[in-house]
Amino acid sequence: MKALEQRILSEGTVLNGDILKVGSFLNQQLDVDFLLEMGNEVKNLYDGQEITKILTIEASGIAIAVAIAAVMHKKVVFAKKNKSANVSGEVYSANVHSYTRNVDYLISVPKDYLNDKDKVLIVDDFLASGKALEGLVDIINQAGATIVGCTCAIEKGYQGGGDKLRKAGYKVQSLAVIDKMSSDGIEFRQ
Amino acid sequence: MKALEQRILSEGTVLNGDILKVGSFLNQQLDVDFLLEMGNEVKNLYDGQEITKILTIEASGIAIAVAIAAVMHKKVVFAKKNKSANVSGEVYSANVHSYTRNVDYLISVPKDYLNDKDKVLIVDDFLASGKALEGLVDIINQAGATIVGCTCAIEKGYQGGGDKLRKAGYKVQSLAVIDKMSSDGIEFRQ
Repeated sequence: MKALEQRILSEGTVLNGDILKVGSFLNQQLDVDFLLEMGNEVKNLYDGQEITKILTIEASGIAIAVAIAAVMHKKVVFAKKNKSANVSGEVYSANVHSYTRNVDYLISVPKDYLNDKDKVLIVDDFLASGKALEGLVDIINQAGATIVGCTCAIEKGYQGGGDKLRKAGYKVQSLAVIDKMSSDGIEFRQ
Repeated sequence: MKALEQRILSEGTVLNGDILKVGSFLNQQLDVDFLLEMGNEVKNLYDGQEITKILTIEASGIAIAVAIAAVMHKKVVFAKKNKSANVSGEVYSANVHSYTRNVDYLISVPKDYLNDKDKVLIVDDFLASGKALEGLVDIINQAGATIVGCTCAIEKGYQGGGDKLRKAGYKVQSLAVIDKMSSDGIEFRQ
């Protein structure tokens, strides 16, 4: 999505070579009209395909998921992150390792909100190592639901998480894929 | 908003007399089309008034804020919660006491995202003691911005937080105000 690439180039800042700050439109400040444009792009990507629910993960995935759902008129379910392993039998759960924070956490979704008739689109703001998405895939599989695809706003292609999921047969379509990034500049995958 | 009251009555459950669970449409599962209906209601409430930004607080305020912003075509800024007092001079911050969790935390908004020209609508999912809103009011005042009003989806009227803010002169308009709540039933303010 060219408009997203341009926005990243004009407003994003790269910290320590690997952290991309886009807080002016996609994090602590949310340019909701622009998020709706992304929603339209996602709607076109999955045109004609049945989707019953959009699944994301708290907290940073919620804004983009709600904007996409506003355009596509779908419900959103988000996985909650728990530090402890203390989850009940009423939830699907999966273990996720965060490289950014170097901790493991448990993500969970109540069984009431996902079932074997659901056709699920996974969305998130960032895709890097792909561990969070793998956790969501695990949860969808536990529910016996179908994974329609996975779309993240910004994929750090050089971290390989997206390509690993593609090789595993999942349809992963990010709106902007970064192939190289440093304080000198950002290169997108063509 | 009658549709919201009906939804609370049909899908909400009251736990321990004071916790209202509405996770099937306003928390871990988000009925985004219904959130957009709420957005339309909020748009009508502030018809003709200039609003430059919608301010909320992470994490549960983000979904409703984005839905309202999608209808009103505004930007959203959310305050982040920090456990430590370790915030930089580049943010506005305020101390907030959480009665639910019995902890104090610091909320903060980068100075880049709020200034004295902003006319701010505060939104959140729940209004109870009003401490979170008071923190947001504090932050808006630090920025020298104008508070247009404050709208929460569900106000626990009997906890007095909303009325305290009204007495202080703020325009507080919640979409559903609960006057009494127990496992026997829920009564709304007329």
